[in-house]
Amino acid sequence: VKVAVIHAAHDIRVEDQEVPPLGPGDVRVRVRAGGICGSDLHYYQHGGFGQVRLREPMILGHEVAGVVEQIGAAVTAVAVGAHVAVNPSQPCGCCDYCRRGMPNQCLDMRFYGSAMRMPHVQGAFREVLVCTESQAIPIPDELAFSSAAFAEPLAVCLHAARQAGALLGQRVLVSGVGPIGALAVLTARQAGAREIVATDILAEPLDLVRRIGADRALNVREQPDALQSYSAGKGYFDVVFEASGSAAALAAAVQVVRAGGSIIQIGLGGDLSVPMNVLVSKELTLRGSFRFHEEFVWAVHCIASGAIKVEPLLTEIVPLAQVRRAFELAGDRRRAMKIQLAL
Amino acid sequence: VKVAVIHAAHDIRVEDQEVPPLGPGDVRVRVRAGGICGSDLHYYQHGGFGQVRLREPMILGHEVAGVVEQIGAAVTAVAVGAHVAVNPSQPCGCCDYCRRGMPNQCLDMRFYGSAMRMPHVQGAFREVLVCTESQAIPIPDELAFSSAAFAEPLAVCLHAARQAGALLGQRVLVSGVGPIGALAVLTARQAGAREIVATDILAEPLDLVRRIGADRALNVREQPDALQSYSAGKGYFDVVFEASGSAAALAAAVQVVRAGGSIIQIGLGGDLSVPMNVLVSKELTLRGSFRFHEEFVWAVHCIASGAIKVEPLLTEIVPLAQVRRAFELAGDRRRAMKIQLAL
Amino acid sequence: VKVAVIHAAHDIRVEDQEVPPLGPGDVRVRVRAGGICGSDLHYYQHGGFGQVRLREPMILGHEVAGVVEQIGAAVTAVAVGAHVAVNPSQPCGCCDYCRRGMPNQCLDMRFYGSAMRMPHVQGAFREVLVCTESQAIPIPDELAFSSAAFAEPLAVCLHAARQAGALLGQRVLVSGVGPIGALAVLTARQAGAREIVATDILAEPLDLVRRIGADRALNVREQPDALQSYSAGKGYFDVVFEASGSAAALAAAVQVVRAGGSIIQIGLGGDLSVPMNVLVSKELTLRGSFRFHEEFVWAVHCIASGAIKVEPLLTEIVPLAQVRRAFELAGDRRRAMKIQLAL
Amino acid sequence: VKVAVIHAAHDIRVEDQEVPPLGPGDVRVRVRAGGICGSDLHYYQHGGFGQVRLREPMILGHEVAGVVEQIGAAVTAVAVGAHVAVNPSQPCGCCDYCRRGMPNQCLDMRFYGSAMRMPHVQGAFREVLVCTESQAIPIPDELAFSSAAFAEPLAVCLHAARQAGALLGQRVLVSGVGPIGALAVLTARQAGAREIVATDILAEPLDLVRRIGADRALNVREQPDALQSYSAGKGYFDVVFEASGSAAALAAAVQVVRAGGSIIQIGLGGDLSVPMNVLVSKELTLRGSFRFHEEFVWAVHCIASGAIKVEPLLTEIVPLAQVRRAFELAGDRRRAMKIQLAL
Repeated sequence: VKVAVIHAAHDIRVEDQEVPPLGPGDVRVRVRAGGICGSDLHYYQHGGFGQVRLREPMILGHEVAGVVEQIGAAVTAVAVGAHVAVNPSQPCGCCDYCRRGMPNQCLDMRFYGSAMRMPHVQGAFREVLVCTESQAIPIPDELAFSSAAFAEPLAVCLHAARQAGALLGQRVLVSGVGPIGALAVLTARQAGAREIVATDILAEPLDLVRRIGADRALNVREQPDALQSYSAGKGYFDVVFEASGSAAALAAAVQVVRAGGSIIQIGLGGDLSVPMNVLVSKELTLRGSFRFHEEFVWAVHCIASGAIKVEPLLTEIVPLAQVRRAFELAGDRRRAMKIQLAL
Repeated sequence: VKVAVIHAAHDIRVEDQEVPPLGPGDVRVRVRAGGICGSDLHYYQHGGFGQVRLREPMILGHEVAGVVEQIGAAVTAVAVGAHVAVNPSQPCGCCDYCRRGMPNQCLDMRFYGSAMRMPHVQGAFREVLVCTESQAIPIPDELAFSSAAFAEPLAVCLHAARQAGALLGQRVLVSGVGPIGALAVLTARQAGAREIVATDILAEPLDLVRRIGADRALNVREQPDALQSYSAGKGYFDVVFEASGSAAALAAAVQVVRAGGSIIQIGLGGDLSVPMNVLVSKELTLRGSFRFHEEFVWAVHCIASGAIKVEPLLTEIVPLAQVRRAFELAGDRRRAMKIQLAL
Repeated sequence: VKVAVIHAAHDIRVEDQEVPPLGPGDVRVRVRAGGICGSDLHYYQHGGFGQVRLREPMILGHEVAGVVEQIGAAVTAVAVGAHVAVNPSQPCGCCDYCRRGMPNQCLDMRFYGSAMRMPHVQGAFREVLVCTESQAIPIPDELAFSSAAFAEPLAVCLHAARQAGALLGQRVLVSGVGPIGALAVLTARQAGAREIVATDILAEPLDLVRRIGADRALNVREQPDALQSYSAGKGYFDVVFEASGSAAALAAAVQVVRAGGSIIQIGLGGDLSVPMNVLVSKELTLRGSFRFHEEFVWAVHCIASGAIKVEPLLTEIVPLAQVRRAFELAGDRRRAMKIQLAL
Repeated sequence: VKVAVIHAAHDIRVEDQEVPPLGPGDVRVRVRAGGICGSDLHYYQHGGFGQVRLREPMILGHEVAGVVEQIGAAVTAVAVGAHVAVNPSQPCGCCDYCRRGMPNQCLDMRFYGSAMRMPHVQGAFREVLVCTESQAIPIPDELAFSSAAFAEPLAVCLHAARQAGALLGQRVLVSGVGPIGALAVLTARQAGAREIVATDILAEPLDLVRRIGADRALNVREQPDALQSYSAGKGYFDVVFEASGSAAALAAAVQVVRAGGSIIQIGLGGDLSVPMNVLVSKELTLRGSFRFHEEFVWAVHCIASGAIKVEPLLTEIVPLAQVRRAFELAGDRRRAMKIQLAL
C-alpha cells in the first residue's frame, strides 16, 4: 500500500510498503483522512525540531481516521466496518509515569511519526494502518472522516485546558492561531471562558478565529500596541494559551496576564528568553502542556456530538499523490489552516 | 537620628535625619538590628536592579527589629517597651488585589527601601523608625533582635513554599544558597520535605546549608556534573526553589525536576533563557514568588518558637558607623551569609 | 410605595412604606421584576429554616432588576434611566474574610431579605429600592427585566461550579431540579461538562431540564433504581451538584460518584445523615457552596450575552397585588419552576 | 506455624497452619512484630464494622515487620536476612483506578486481614508470611521491628495529610487520639503545622499526645465547652483530622473549622449526622481518606530516619500465645495506645 515517507527536509515521497501482519489484539484500518500537523511540517521544512532530527526515513502523520477492515482474533471492542479515529499514542502502561496516571509522560512512549527515539516510530500517513484495539476509537458512521481526524489536535487542546484549571468565567488570551491556537479558542469557549482574545501576525487566521468565536482577534504585527491596554493594573487575562513559540509573544503574554495568572505553553520549540523579573514579581505560572491521554476519546466525543465544531478549520483535502503540494500548502499560513491528506 | 542613605552605587552614607512625627495609629520603634538583603546589595553594588534604578537618595533596609519607645493615641495592640519585628510591607488595602486576598500584589504597595516608585519609599536602616501599629509585630523579650530581624526573609521563603503546594514527602532542590536559599532549606525541612539537595558555586555557603539540614550540598562549579544523575527517568525532584537567578541554574533545574514538577523562582533578575522544549514536553510549572503578606506574622512565630532556627545564618553584626564595611562584607559570599547592622 | 412583607408563616402582605432617603453613594431603583427564591418560600411556608426564624416583619426578595430613577451626588457608575440588576449582597469589606477575598463569608454580611441577623435585613420586593452604587449592575436596555432577575440565582450556581473545580469534560449529576438545580444544569453545560444527568421526584421539572440540556432526567420516585447502573465500579460521576437537601438524594449521590469525586451541596437545610463509611472509603469530597460574590457581575454578563439562556425557567410573572397567589404557585413544584413578581 | 485466627466476635485463636508455597516473585518473612489496628479490634469486638462482617475464619493483622528468610527465584530487590516492613496492600495494577494513579481505590484490592471480599483476604499475624517482593520494604537492621510495624498506620496518616493539602503554617485540630489520631498529630507537626490542638474523651491518650507534640490536648467529655472559644468568627482551624468517628465530634469540628476549611475524615464508621446547614454556609470541605499507597515506603523512611518518632505510642508487646489478652488490652483506651504482638 502507499505511504508518505519523509527522507530529509523537503524530501517527502509516496512509496509502496507491505502492510504489517495483524496480531491477535490488532486492528487493520483503511485510513481515509490524515491531517498535517505542525510537527509533520517541522520534519518537512527543517528535518526535525530542537534536538530531534530525522536519522532514517520515517512515515509521517498522526491525525488519522478510517474504516476497520480486519480485526485480530482477540479483538472485541471494534468490528469490521466500524469507522474509527486512531489514537497515535502508545504508552507502555508499566513505567512510573503510566502507573501514576500520567501516561502522556511515559518513559517508553511510542507516538506515531516521531523521531524522538531510534528507530523512529513510523507514522500513520498510509493507506492501511495496523494499530492496537485500544487505539481505534469508534466514531458515528455519519461523521466525516475529515472531522474525526481533528480528534488528535483537539485532544492536545483539551489537555492544555486541563493544565489551566477551571476556565469557566475566565478571560483568556490565545497567542498564535495556527490549528492548535484555533482549536484552543474553540476549547476555551467550550469551557465557558468569559472572554477570548486571539493574536497572530497574519490577517487570514485571525479572520478565521474571529468567525469561530474569538471575541477579538488582533494582528500584533500590524498593530504592535494592540495588547497595550490589557497591561494596565498588572494585566487583564487570567490564562494565556501560548501557541506561537515566539519569545516576543511570550514577553507580551507576561505583560498582559494578571498577577497570579497562568500561561500555558503548547507546542515544542527551542530556548526562549523569559522576562523573569515580571514573572516573579507578578507571581505568574508558566506551565507546559504536552500531548494528551484520555482526552483523545473525549475529543472524539466532542466532535461527534457537535459540541465542538472543527469543520471551519479544514482548508483543503489533498490526494496522497500530491503530498508535496499538501505540505507546501500546509506551510503557508496565509492560505491554509488545516490541510488533510485523502488516503 | 542616624540613618543609612544610599546616594548611588557604592555611595552609602550615615546621615542625620529628623524622626517623622507620630500619627495616632503609629508606633515609634528604636531599631536594634537590621539585616542587609539582596536588594539592598543590588542598590549598593549596581544602583538598582533590572529597570528599577535609584533616582534620589534613599534610606535602605527592610529587615529590622527593635523596641517600641512611643505609641500614638489610638494604638492598642502594642505597648511602650514591647519588642517588635517590623513588617516592611504596606499594601493599600483597597485595590483589586488587596480585596482579592493578594495584598503582596497591591497596585499601590509601599515597601521599605524600594526605588520601584517615585518618590522612593524610604527604608528602615534608621536608629528610630515610625511605622503603623499593624506593622509592629510583638516578639518575646528573650528573643534576640538579630533573630527577629530574620522574619522578613523567612516570610519570603514561607510564601514561596506556599506557592509550591504541599512539600510533605517531596524531594526538593534548592538552587543557590545565599540567605534566601538557605532559609528555603530550613523552610522545606519544616514543611516535611523528604529530601533536600542544595547547589551553589561556592563551598562556604554549601558547608553552612549542609550543617543546617540539607541532605546534600553540591558545588556545581567544581563538579559541573553533580546533578547529572538526578536527570534519569525525566528527573528526580518534585520541587525546585530557584534562588540563584542564573540561567544555567534554571536550565539545570529543568533537567532534574520530574515531569509535572514545579520550579519556584524567588528573587528578581533580568530576562532568562528557558529551555522551553523541555519545560513543555515534561509539563513543568515555573512559578514566581514575590514577597509575602500574612507569612510575616507566621515567620515571627516560627523564629520565636524555635521551630525554625535562623541563628546559624547570622555571620556578623556590624555597627551602623561601619555601614560601608557591612555592605562590602555582605557582598562577599565566601565570608558572609547574613550581615546585620547594629542600630 | 408598595412592599411585600412577611409577618409569619403564610402571612405575607402588601404594605405601604416610605422610600428610604438617598445617600450620596446610593441609587434609587424602580424595581420591575423580582424572582421568588427557595429561601423566600421557606419564610412563607415555615417562617424560616433551620435555626433562622422570623422575629420581626421583613420585606422578602433578593432577585430583582429595574430602572435607575435617581442617583446620589457621588454616583458615577450608573446614570438615571439605566437598567440594572441589583446585587443583594453587601459584605462589610473590612473583616478578615473580606480581606482574604472571601466576601461571601463576610462576618458582618447584610443580604436582602434575610432573618439571619437582628434586626433583619429588609428585602427587595418593593416598588422602589435604594441600594448602593456598587450593587446596581447595568444591563442592556433590550434585556428583559425578568431575565436579568435571574442573575442572583445564576450567580449562586456559577459560584457552586467554581467550588467544583474544572467541569470541562466531567460527568455531572444534578440532584434536585428546582430553579437552582435547573440553573446548575445550564451552568454545567456552559462549563463544558461531558454528560449531565438530572434527578428529581417530579416529572414536570425533569421535563423542563431535559429540554434545556440535561442528557438524561430521571424520576427517582417512580424509578427508585434509576441511578443503580451508575454505581458500578465505585461510581460514574465526577461531580454531583446536590440541590435537593434530601438525605436520600445525598446517600444516592455518594453511591454513584466515582472514588475521589466531589459532591457540591447547594442550599441550606437541616442536619443530614451521611453514609460516612462510603464517603471515607471512596475518598469523596463533600463541599458546601454558599451564595456568591464576583459571580454576580459575571452572571449578568452570561444572561445578557445569551451564553446562558434562563428564559425557559420562567413560569409566570404575577402582579405584586397577588403576592399570596405568587407564593402559593411558587410552592407548587408541579406547576412552577420560577415565579416572579411584577413590581 | 502459628497464626492468630478470628472466628467470631471475641473468639480469636492461635492455630497451626502450613506456610503457603513460595512463588518465584515471592518473599518469605519471619514476622517479628505485628500491631493491632482499630479494624482488627472491630473484628474482635463486633465481628466486623458497618456492612463488613466475618463470614469465615480469618487471620487478622496488617501492621507487621520481620526478617526475610527465603526468596523466590526471580526476586532481586531484597535478600535473605534483610529486615523488612510489609505493605499489606496489593492493588491489582490493571483496573481504572490503578491506571489513574489511585491504587488505594483499586477495584480488585487485596488487603491483609480484610473481610470486605469473600473469600476473605487472610492477614499477617503469622509467624511466617509469604508476600510479593514489592510488598517487602527494607528497613535498617538497627531499627526495632516494633517501630517498623508502625509504617502502616503512619502511611494512613501521611495519606490523610495529603488529602488535606499543604499543612505548612496551618492550624490543625485532631479529633480523637487513638493510634491514628496520635500519628496524625505527629504527621501534622512534621508537615509544619503552626498549631495543633487534640481532643478526646479520655485523659490518658490526651496526656500522651501532649507529650509527643500537641500544643493543647482537650478533654471534651470533662469540659464539653473546651472548644467553644474556637468557634468565634466562624471558626479557627484550617484543617481538622477527624479520627473519632463520632457524630458529636464531627458536629464540633464543623463549628470550629474556619469558613472554607477542611475536615479530613479518617477511619470507617457507619452513617453520621452532619450539620449540613453549617457545612454549606461556611463552605466547608469534608473529605474521606482511605488507606495509602506510595506513602508506605515514605512512612518507612520517616520512621527509619527518625523524622517521625513513633516509639512513644507503643504501650506493650504481647506474646502471640496471649493474643486474647493483647486484644483485650488494645481495646482499653485508658491503658493502651498501640499494642503489638511478638510473633
